[in-house]
Amino acid sequence: MYDQNVYDDEKFFNGYFALRQTKDNYNVLIEQPAMSKLICAVKDKCVLDLGCGFGDNCAQFARMGAKRVVGIDISEKMLSVAKKENSHETVQYVHSRFENIDTLNEKFDLVYSSLAFHYTDEFDVLMKKIYAVMNEGATLLFSQEHPIATATIDGNGHYNYDGDEPVSYTFSHYNKSGKRTVEWFVKGVQKYHRTFAQVINAVAQAGLTVTQVVEPTPDERALSIRPSLRKEFIKPSFLIVKAVKK
Amino acid sequence: MYDQNVYDDEKFFNGYFALRQTKDNYNVLIEQPAMSKLICAVKDKCVLDLGCGFGDNCAQFARMGAKRVVGIDISEKMLSVAKKENSHETVQYVHSRFENIDTLNEKFDLVYSSLAFHYTDEFDVLMKKIYAVMNEGATLLFSQEHPIATATIDGNGHYNYDGDEPVSYTFSHYNKSGKRTVEWFVKGVQKYHRTFAQVINAVAQAGLTVTQVVEPTPDERALSIRPSLRKEFIKPSFLIVKAVKK
Repeated sequence: MYDQNVYDDEKFFNGYFALRQTKDNYNVLIEQPAMSKLICAVKDKCVLDLGCGFGDNCAQFARMGAKRVVGIDISEKMLSVAKKENSHETVQYVHSRFENIDTLNEKFDLVYSSLAFHYTDEFDVLMKKIYAVMNEGATLLFSQEHPIATATIDGNGHYNYDGDEPVSYTFSHYNKSGKRTVEWFVKGVQKYHRTFAQVINAVAQAGLTVTQVVEPTPDERALSIRPSLRKEFIKPSFLIVKAVKK
Repeated sequence: MYDQNVYDDEKFFNGYFALRQTKDNYNVLIEQPAMSKLICAVKDKCVLDLGCGFGDNCAQFARMGAKRVVGIDISEKMLSVAKKENSHETVQYVHSRFENIDTLNEKFDLVYSSLAFHYTDEFDVLMKKIYAVMNEGATLLFSQEHPIATATIDGNGHYNYDGDEPVSYTFSHYNKSGKRTVEWFVKGVQKYHRTFAQVINAVAQAGLTVTQVVEPTPDERALSIRPSLRKEFIKPSFLIVKAVKK
């Protein structure tokens, strides 16, 4: 079992916090718009947010009328921001690794996770734990880094350019899943690469029915704000999966 | 509507026929072993093989005790070989584009297709037609070229080498799905690139439940016969999807 808590590293936290303040980052322009389109109605529902970070999504679920929102994160620094900026009477923040949800004594109608699951080394087990805390008819919606992006062992998957124009992407080790150590604000950030097949199979084998997969692309607005996002048509950065407990 | 019938082109047919006679081709070493592991029991069942080609799989289903096997292919040349080499009292070969299965007046327990679906431009509609000819509890099992392999518009996705050692793969246009014209034995072979998301969504939206996805890798035996297959660990050649009608 591995606890990725680089988010409590001060240098990492400061870098990440600054990134999330920007208005033209990948979350704001690509991942969050795609996730928003897939969120089911949460009015009077119970929502679990795994790796809730600064709590922006928890607050959004509260504003959408959720009866109860539980946000789980391993980082105390992240949760302290969440409690300050995104507190709400229906939102409870829990300081824990999200792999511990089997200790929860309640069930949810939506289990949501934005860009956290590529940090866990227990994806198959996690899917089974998620299934166990879902009500009948509940939805699982998660995003993660795209398998083509996480594939290369040394983290050196890269776009190729003709002058300023991105023309292709080079990667390796796609079918060798496992730990990846990369540099992102700090050295030694650990992620786990899984193939498409492994992601989908873990969801299906837990008993969930995959209803939609999205590899999001930027819309016109996003491209006008950040033209370099046209790279996403060469190789997407994110993979989004929606599944239901039938 | 586009009919890919390059298989009746004499030059193509001869090249393809010669390839399929070899014992170390990709079908024999990677795709067929992976498909075999996923085939459900077909004894006393009805099987539909879409793009059956030379009929090897139809004959196999017959030997496995299938009650009835219908093999459909658009190529008369392929079917003439099938009828000569793989005829069986329970196997019926039908000369038709497989997109016409909505004219069939029967249902099946297994719908099987090996490396044919990347030739159709009507994948979403095809999935709905397949759903309609499946009995309750029936299985769909198909393989196709891998989306990373079909992505690059000019067909120039390629491995990169350090001397003789394959080290990475370069591609483009992944998130721009559509027609791809490539050279394979002859010029102008048309295929259709779909993203992983588009493949899975078409299956799910037709009403089928995805139960397993495989991006096959060569086993030790295959690697000993054809060592260059280690490339499959960098970037797989095939995508296999299994789904059921619940």
